[in-house]
Amino acid sequence: MALMEINVSPLGTGSTSVGEFVVNMQRLLAEQGLPYELTDMGTIIEGDIDQLLAVAKALHESPFSNEAKRVYTVIKIDDRRDKEVHLGQKTISVKQRL
Amino acid sequence: MALMEINVSPLGTGSTSVGEFVVNMQRLLAEQGLPYELTDMGTIIEGDIDQLLAVAKALHESPFSNEAKRVYTVIKIDDRRDKEVHLGQKTISVKQRL
Amino acid sequence: MALMEINVSPLGTGSTSVGEFVVNMQRLLAEQGLPYELTDMGTIIEGDIDQLLAVAKALHESPFSNEAKRVYTVIKIDDRRDKEVHLGQKTISVKQRL
Amino acid sequence: MALMEINVSPLGTGSTSVGEFVVNMQRLLAEQGLPYELTDMGTIIEGDIDQLLAVAKALHESPFSNEAKRVYTVIKIDDRRDKEVHLGQKTISVKQRL
Repeated sequence: MALMEINVSPLGTGSTSVGEFVVNMQRLLAEQGLPYELTDMGTIIEGDIDQLLAVAKALHESPFSNEAKRVYTVIKIDDRRDKEVHLGQKTISVKQRL
Repeated sequence: MALMEINVSPLGTGSTSVGEFVVNMQRLLAEQGLPYELTDMGTIIEGDIDQLLAVAKALHESPFSNEAKRVYTVIKIDDRRDKEVHLGQKTISVKQRL
Repeated sequence: MALMEINVSPLGTGSTSVGEFVVNMQRLLAEQGLPYELTDMGTIIEGDIDQLLAVAKALHESPFSNEAKRVYTVIKIDDRRDKEVHLGQKTISVKQRL
Repeated sequence: MALMEINVSPLGTGSTSVGEFVVNMQRLLAEQGLPYELTDMGTIIEGDIDQLLAVAKALHESPFSNEAKRVYTVIKIDDRRDKEVHLGQKTISVKQRL
């Protein structure tokens, strides 16, 4: 199981605010059925690598359906095959050791 | 005001677990006096660009003091000068519009 | 057409050198038939979003076949639908204007 | 010695083209005196961590001087303390082993 963080930015929209795009992406994400968490710098999603890349595709395409002409997407994937990884686990584990 | 997300990975440690490094970095971060939030994929910190880069330096150096020989750091900075940006704000704003 | 930059790091291998993994990924990439360029910080590949994510999958999986237990992958995608984008173009265009 | 890759994107400029910003940043970079290389997805710079973060600051500030109101910057730093690392070295080393 892996965690993916994804940030999708429409470029050249003429507005510094991208809230509407983010709202649309969150709605889309809610339909995918994978555990996820919105942070101030992106969205973290839990799944296997095929599920995660399918979601990445859908999110990346989303602003193009909302009139964006250029999209810049940053993805980080942390994939462990030596143990189960779930959303929220790492944060809890670190906090317990502080 | 800007938000920075930073992820610092020691490479070549011989262990897939980097929890100890993360704990040390969180302690260091708590001493810096800037608002921050630990996520599963990094740490998000609020500050102006000079404060954020000073913290980035300290966090990036941290694993070298703990015997790491190679460190790979990923930083994303979202800096707005047209309005105040605070930690937690974007997440709340999007959730209100869902 | 889009450009993707991808960097795949095996974690916990016990060595700071990841040259062997990079060599394997380059061989794999050469078989995919897409234009690409190796840089010091990743590999840049040209294709449409489906082609790029298929390659991302293959590259991300590669270290697991070479005994890695944890892989950390960073992907940036710059996707323009208002004009054709090809590998090398942006660099040339900027250099011409310097 | 470390390598840093940096990509600075002005958001909300009303144009999908950011060539002018990139040209300004390259001029600024040429004045810094550090080895660097422009790629299609960012600029790779060689230096120690203090030099690299100082350049990151200058590049990140640059679009604000050119009327941008929001800037999104992505930085990756690969820092080895077990051996000298120079720009171009990794690429050559991998190509020799193919």
